[in-house]
Amino acid sequence: MSPPEYARAHRARFLAELKRLVRFPSVSAQSKHAGDVRACAEWLAGHLKGIGMQGVRVIATPRHPIVYAEWMGARGRPTVLIYGHYDVQPPDPLQEWTTPPFEPTVRNGYLYGRGACDDKGQIFCHVKALETFLRTTGRLPVNVKCLFEGEEEIGSPNLKPFIKRHARALAADAAVMSDTRMLGPDQPALTYSLRGGLGMELEVAGPRQDLHSGTFGGAVLNPLQALCEIVAGLHDREGRIAIPGFYDRVRRPDERERAYMRTVGPPDAKILADAGAERGWGEPGWSIYERTTVRPSLAVTGITGGYQGEGSKAVIPARATAKLNFRLVPDQEPRAIEALVRRHVARATPSTVRSRLVTHLRARPAEIDRGHPAVRAAAFAYRKGFRAAPVFLRSGGSIPVVNVFQEVLGIPTALMGFALPDDRIHAPNERFHLASFTRGIATCLAFLDEMAGVRPPRWREEKVAA
Amino acid sequence: MSPPEYARAHRARFLAELKRLVRFPSVSAQSKHAGDVRACAEWLAGHLKGIGMQGVRVIATPRHPIVYAEWMGARGRPTVLIYGHYDVQPPDPLQEWTTPPFEPTVRNGYLYGRGACDDKGQIFCHVKALETFLRTTGRLPVNVKCLFEGEEEIGSPNLKPFIKRHARALAADAAVMSDTRMLGPDQPALTYSLRGGLGMELEVAGPRQDLHSGTFGGAVLNPLQALCEIVAGLHDREGRIAIPGFYDRVRRPDERERAYMRTVGPPDAKILADAGAERGWGEPGWSIYERTTVRPSLAVTGITGGYQGEGSKAVIPARATAKLNFRLVPDQEPRAIEALVRRHVARATPSTVRSRLVTHLRARPAEIDRGHPAVRAAAFAYRKGFRAAPVFLRSGGSIPVVNVFQEVLGIPTALMGFALPDDRIHAPNERFHLASFTRGIATCLAFLDEMAGVRPPRWREEKVAA
Repeated sequence: MSPPEYARAHRARFLAELKRLVRFPSVSAQSKHAGDVRACAEWLAGHLKGIGMQGVRVIATPRHPIVYAEWMGARGRPTVLIYGHYDVQPPDPLQEWTTPPFEPTVRNGYLYGRGACDDKGQIFCHVKALETFLRTTGRLPVNVKCLFEGEEEIGSPNLKPFIKRHARALAADAAVMSDTRMLGPDQPALTYSLRGGLGMELEVAGPRQDLHSGTFGGAVLNPLQALCEIVAGLHDREGRIAIPGFYDRVRRPDERERAYMRTVGPPDAKILADAGAERGWGEPGWSIYERTTVRPSLAVTGITGGYQGEGSKAVIPARATAKLNFRLVPDQEPRAIEALVRRHVARATPSTVRSRLVTHLRARPAEIDRGHPAVRAAAFAYRKGFRAAPVFLRSGGSIPVVNVFQEVLGIPTALMGFALPDDRIHAPNERFHLASFTRGIATCLAFLDEMAGVRPPRWREEKVAA
Repeated sequence: MSPPEYARAHRARFLAELKRLVRFPSVSAQSKHAGDVRACAEWLAGHLKGIGMQGVRVIATPRHPIVYAEWMGARGRPTVLIYGHYDVQPPDPLQEWTTPPFEPTVRNGYLYGRGACDDKGQIFCHVKALETFLRTTGRLPVNVKCLFEGEEEIGSPNLKPFIKRHARALAADAAVMSDTRMLGPDQPALTYSLRGGLGMELEVAGPRQDLHSGTFGGAVLNPLQALCEIVAGLHDREGRIAIPGFYDRVRRPDERERAYMRTVGPPDAKILADAGAERGWGEPGWSIYERTTVRPSLAVTGITGGYQGEGSKAVIPARATAKLNFRLVPDQEPRAIEALVRRHVARATPSTVRSRLVTHLRARPAEIDRGHPAVRAAAFAYRKGFRAAPVFLRSGGSIPVVNVFQEVLGIPTALMGFALPDDRIHAPNERFHLASFTRGIATCLAFLDEMAGVRPPRWREEKVAA
């Protein structure tokens, strides 16, 4: 049986196994799920062993474990580092799910469940491609190292130290990961830039305890109101971020790049349709595709303060918090932006309340050379798997590990994603297109095959010379 | 045994019974507690029967029941309507309670628990005064009707229709209630004005579903950000409410009234100390006592939007809500103010999101004649119970039923409260001073005694003549 025949013949079992993987509530952000994250890692490790991968290990970190596996029997061939993450976003708000987030369900050609797309379904495309080669040919076309982490959704706090410590063991010629979007079910896309991130939590505190809003209404500044004023002041009327100095180091794409983006990128109407939004918004002078990729942004991702329950409660809360999520572009430095935010918020805080900022995530933006052999191999693989040439896209998201691979291992990452724009990652009713699962496996097979023909010394020398 | 001797002798049992009453989680705002509210009403009715009150009934309303009891054996004497409420505020945030809200505990001379002060402890002062008279003299000095409702903390939605329907059965010469503050443990106070209220919930909605803040950050207006902007725009920089027309009908107190308020009212420092706040805030040109009594106010009492859990979630929420709590003063009309708010919010809502306002509470402000015989009787009673003359205070809170008694039954209400400024009503660790409980009972005894000497026809005629 040829590898493609094997993959077709075992499609139903592959799906059943993916459902098993999605069933783990491996929510890395919530400590109550630490045991589930661990159980998911153990299951994944066992599965990799079962398909014939070697050196499989579940490696503890200060928080959630890393799953490692390798197959190094392709002497003289390149080594590919396959990266992915088995942790998932919190499933809230639960009541908006049609079927429970951790009871994966197939409807209308999609698998629904938290993590079905981000990133369990996508790492499983690679895992099933590895199984297919190992079961049909007894080997892989290239050397492979798998690195599946459990902390991507909380900013990968322990991954960079791990990679630094094990840089020699993780040495490879290129990395590949599938955690990005295509343009549509028949239009694959290779991501060549990612925004960086800066996650902060703003707390505003006022009176020692909650106060009755009748007795004290009008007497003290309500921390929740002060929080709203500070948050409102983070943007100007037109949608620009109003923090002094924020745009100073933003690199402006040249006209050629903007023209390319106009040609291949999704038009405003398409992005808005994917978002389920009637009208766009944001920084004047840029298309929505540009606003979400080459321009930085700030989203308030959550506010907590006062009474949240049914009905009303006559209370002035003692404190209120907002979660701030900045997306950064070259050449913004997370630490420098953090300092600007701190200075701005300190100045914006009224003297009758106190504010405090805690940073929980910093990630640099990343750019990948579109001409790199591994990126070209991914483009070829898409043509085989999806019968369509990929476009090259910029992404608004952040994948900090791409920078780590570049900085620590000196390798680029092929961002060969299989997600669809309406797969609702991070939202209720997340799903993975079953056609993308099948074609994704075919693409991963073609990618490994194509990588086998690449002569590693060539580009290694180029890198050294550069 | 004289009534005061009886009250002293049974002090320990009175406290044990109050603890039993506080143990009911009679949270009227939360439907999950509907059964507890009902159970509390049944217990209270049984207790009133047990002390010798007559015609005791638990009367169903569309939501939470009313407890009624009477004793009408004092022919030729005035009739006093004792009003109170046995429902309580939600206990959130639970983690800030030293001991659980519904496990009443005595510490340092205070009874801690949700409702210990507001209003279970205070209605119990009246109930124990009634018991004391009935057990020692076999009668009451005046006719009494007790009306204890279970919906005060949700704005008494069913009380006004009930009182209208039963206006004849509820006929009385004056009402008394204990649900207001004194100035300090040895400084009683009679409240002679209350602010009105207007409770609204503002929802801002944007995209059809939650969006990934990386992929879509910068593309669409975040409903949570729009909500913050609208809320921030409800006040001007100096603390005035910025809704056009909001102050148009606010009646300005004359210089004599302001001078009286300066003489008897708490100074700024005292109010801030009670609030546990370092610095005041609010409308320029008015003392804090004035800002919280004769000037209207607006408090945002809760905001919900986005991810509220531990850690972070990269999400642009599809919608966000804010609870708005206005306090109104004469001659502001709740419905007129509501229209102004709706117009202002509609204008302030950016075109790329949608906003919606739901009103869940409307209450007119109230003023009580300080010279009314029932108010004078309450002042006399305080002198007996606390050995101190009360001052006359304005309150920032709202007790809508005071207006209903005036408008429907044509009677004033003596606001003879026993709460202390630092009893933390509506906040975690609510408590009731045990000394106030004892003295409150003595005050209620003296009040009924004093009312017996009032010749009802006199002030009835005055009212008719006026």
